[in-house]
Amino acid sequence: MPTTVYDPPALAPGTLRVIPLGGLGEVGRNMTVFEYEGKLLVVDCGVLFPEEHQPGVDLILPDFEPIRHRLDDIVGVVLTHGHEDHIGAVPYLLKLKGDIPLIGSGLTLALIEAKLKEHRIRPYTLTVEEGQREKVGPFDLEFVAVNHSIPDALAVAIRTPAGLVLATGDFKMDQLPLDGRITDLRAFARLGEEGVDLFLVDSTNADVPGFTPTERGIGPVLDQVIARAPRRVVVASFSSHVHRVQQVLDAAHANGRRVALLGRSMVRNMGIAADLGYLNVPEGVLIDYKKARDLPDNQIVYMSTGSQGEPMAVLSRMANLDHAIEPGEGDTIILASSQIPGNENAIYRVIDGLTKLGATVVHKGNAKVHVSGHAAAGELLYCYNILKPKNVLPVHGEYRHLMANAKLARETGIPEENTILGENGTVVDLRDGVASVVGQVDIGFVYVDGSSVGEITDADLKDRRILGEEGFISVIVVVDSATGKIVSGPEIHARGVAEDDRVFDSVKPKIAAALAEAAKSGVRDNHALSQVVRRTIGRWVNQSLRRRPMIVPMVIEA
Amino acid sequence: MPTTVYDPPALAPGTLRVIPLGGLGEVGRNMTVFEYEGKLLVVDCGVLFPEEHQPGVDLILPDFEPIRHRLDDIVGVVLTHGHEDHIGAVPYLLKLKGDIPLIGSGLTLALIEAKLKEHRIRPYTLTVEEGQREKVGPFDLEFVAVNHSIPDALAVAIRTPAGLVLATGDFKMDQLPLDGRITDLRAFARLGEEGVDLFLVDSTNADVPGFTPTERGIGPVLDQVIARAPRRVVVASFSSHVHRVQQVLDAAHANGRRVALLGRSMVRNMGIAADLGYLNVPEGVLIDYKKARDLPDNQIVYMSTGSQGEPMAVLSRMANLDHAIEPGEGDTIILASSQIPGNENAIYRVIDGLTKLGATVVHKGNAKVHVSGHAAAGELLYCYNILKPKNVLPVHGEYRHLMANAKLARETGIPEENTILGENGTVVDLRDGVASVVGQVDIGFVYVDGSSVGEITDADLKDRRILGEEGFISVIVVVDSATGKIVSGPEIHARGVAEDDRVFDSVKPKIAAALAEAAKSGVRDNHALSQVVRRTIGRWVNQSLRRRPMIVPMVIEA
Repeated sequence: MPTTVYDPPALAPGTLRVIPLGGLGEVGRNMTVFEYEGKLLVVDCGVLFPEEHQPGVDLILPDFEPIRHRLDDIVGVVLTHGHEDHIGAVPYLLKLKGDIPLIGSGLTLALIEAKLKEHRIRPYTLTVEEGQREKVGPFDLEFVAVNHSIPDALAVAIRTPAGLVLATGDFKMDQLPLDGRITDLRAFARLGEEGVDLFLVDSTNADVPGFTPTERGIGPVLDQVIARAPRRVVVASFSSHVHRVQQVLDAAHANGRRVALLGRSMVRNMGIAADLGYLNVPEGVLIDYKKARDLPDNQIVYMSTGSQGEPMAVLSRMANLDHAIEPGEGDTIILASSQIPGNENAIYRVIDGLTKLGATVVHKGNAKVHVSGHAAAGELLYCYNILKPKNVLPVHGEYRHLMANAKLARETGIPEENTILGENGTVVDLRDGVASVVGQVDIGFVYVDGSSVGEITDADLKDRRILGEEGFISVIVVVDSATGKIVSGPEIHARGVAEDDRVFDSVKPKIAAALAEAAKSGVRDNHALSQVVRRTIGRWVNQSLRRRPMIVPMVIEA
Repeated sequence: MPTTVYDPPALAPGTLRVIPLGGLGEVGRNMTVFEYEGKLLVVDCGVLFPEEHQPGVDLILPDFEPIRHRLDDIVGVVLTHGHEDHIGAVPYLLKLKGDIPLIGSGLTLALIEAKLKEHRIRPYTLTVEEGQREKVGPFDLEFVAVNHSIPDALAVAIRTPAGLVLATGDFKMDQLPLDGRITDLRAFARLGEEGVDLFLVDSTNADVPGFTPTERGIGPVLDQVIARAPRRVVVASFSSHVHRVQQVLDAAHANGRRVALLGRSMVRNMGIAADLGYLNVPEGVLIDYKKARDLPDNQIVYMSTGSQGEPMAVLSRMANLDHAIEPGEGDTIILASSQIPGNENAIYRVIDGLTKLGATVVHKGNAKVHVSGHAAAGELLYCYNILKPKNVLPVHGEYRHLMANAKLARETGIPEENTILGENGTVVDLRDGVASVVGQVDIGFVYVDGSSVGEITDADLKDRRILGEEGFISVIVVVDSATGKIVSGPEIHARGVAEDDRVFDSVKPKIAAALAEAAKSGVRDNHALSQVVRRTIGRWVNQSLRRRPMIVPMVIEA
């Protein structure tokens, strides 16, 4: 269903405009722009990780195009929490304009600052905490504590004369979180009584029935697995999951083991979390991994990255015996993580590799070693009932997630016409408690590939897909510029098509004949001659090999 | 962990040799060869479907190499059931020698015969049924009923003077199967009392705790969903899952709806199943799909293929509005199927597409509309306890599945040294109740791609992966054969690398200079000059674009 793009009207005074630039119809690159009286507030600025139909792409950014010419109007970027899909694109935004202020909690800002340091950017920042109110341009912001799979996450209430908006960011409602910092339903209730005009709400788990189990349930499982492990233990998890790491530290400590952190991002993030007091490291439990190797096997736990089967991360390298720590018989590997859809094959390749080396692999599929970071349907119903928002815009999720979330909203009595199923680029105007879709701007995929940003196009990716599926055949013919006669070639080189280029020997005379024929009928233009070459070999390959590789004909004059 | 290949000794008289050619360390291309007194018996001959690191590949076959020179010694191919991963490679085997007899149940042979007809092969066949004994060369075969996600599946007991082998094929132990045909545990008990010397057992679900629920549990769910569906219903499932289709027919019939079958393989397989009496079609329930479109929406159920998100199958085409049946508001789509690992992204793309069109999508994730076809751990324990085999060779599965299955065997008291963790090509000799690994033959991947079989190599796939991730740059330089001077070029063409070939303008003089330099120092060989071109542009691309595309330099004399 291609989206029909149409321009929104000029923004009327007293009206708040909301445009999601990413995160709707996809899990990642969350970014929403709010406009009031000529000023822009951005909430989140994350990246999306590519799927297999986007080969070679490193990252996908939100499309900054709708705000590129208005960077001076941005009064701030609120970052709700420190996950890549909410902060990862900040360096690319700040490369366009370095002094846009970043607003977020202590941990969130520390994580983005560490990231920006690698890009050699020192940002302007404003640290906020739950309960705090800040006037940023025409936007009156209030921050509300929410619970998620990273500490110090915040929802943000945005007040303008046009109405009150609440954006949750990512959240869940663990009622017994490890740090005691629950999603602040009292604040939600107070905002609800004041009247929430528009509710932007996390949809990631909207199609999961019931309630996300408490993070606290994982500790005893980790403890049991570690207690029974005869030799070394390796736990893999996300490098920002402070509470998961906390539970590993505690379980290791309780079992008389020390913990070595592995992986650059794990070491960096946990350093930050410990420095800021979010990670409580039991005295003497951490050990440098080089020293850890001298400990007896049953006194060590390695905490590593690579839980998604990423080929360059520690766990994959261990499975391939390409890491100083080589797993073997008696070792226990725990994948304390989700399986992000699309990563299953990679994860199972790692699990198989480790199993083959003799290790016991404990994962989500055979033990309770992971819970989600997002509110399931039951929790979302609580939110709707306590907030009773006038209008709802489900965000953060594939279309089916947004749809499921809208359905939950309707079930709590929000009229269908007030639940907005938007896409990236949907322009929503809010005025006097009425939210309406007034336009749809074009939003593209911005691919980061190597050092290039936005240079690789969908056409390039289509070429890559053809090349990757079918390979290519290049045909070079050198013709005499005066006579048009073949001076050299046709030379044929193929990659990914056939084991031996000699299979093309029989088509060379056909190409030469077709070119002679074309020359006879007066064709001299190199491009036209190239097309003759393309057609001749294309037809031959199609018939004789039943394949459709990319064909690159080159007719050169000499 | 690369496998060490070593030759087995010559086969001693009175010894049975077992070599799995596929299906160990992978889910698919199941094939095992048994040799006794110079004669070969093959059990199953299936295909494996490619993963994303095998781009462009249509199918993967077992490696016939170890038996290619001994085709005349094959006394028969036993096909345990009619799934592609057990019969799909038969046409390729019969292309090598057309008169190898196929042995299997009525439905299994009917399915392979329909397949062979498309390849214009008429096979020799021997139809067998449960309880039957057949002497095939030196092999005394007994067939045992097993329950699986396709009717008429058989296990096979193979008796030779070397001992008694039982190969389960794929199976589970549904105690209330739709057709009442349970896995014959009385036969298992009898074989156990006789003494099973070697047990080849399905490992697919060995790491799933408990018991696979009964297929019968799905009927009421289908009935309920269909009863509540306001408009059209589409059910997608595997095209050979006769019992699933049966339950759809029954549920449709009970709700006053008619059923139209969609998809070539669905129509073909269900025609075969109905003709042979495996599918019981309620009077008047089936309708041609062209006529179905004239029925009121609430009187029709479409039964289709495409439950794995295959891009060319009916369901994907519906989701893309590329099928005569265009789903919309009020329609209900049921994916009554598993999600084969690796297919999740494709499946979710289809689910999202359908949701976006307004349809309600019911799937494994939100309703009990699928059960597995394989025995889970609990069922396997029953098997081990009733059979008490002397030796076990877990088959059909990734390494972690084989490992889990071996663990279950040990838990029932089978000594560790008698559970053989084999790989494809592991040579197991059985004599006097003793099974031992005596060799490891080399087993490769045989890729079918278009009309080519075994011509695409792993090197080609590596090229494709590089091309698919990074694209390529070709550089053509025409040099004067006498002077070595550049006559034309360098011309640079890239695909999948950059939007515009003009980015390479700045490197052209560098290439020309490098070639001139090389010529000055006496380099004249075209290959050596090509390497100069490769190094020059390779270094430039690496530094300026931070990328590593394939580089194809061509220096041509004219």
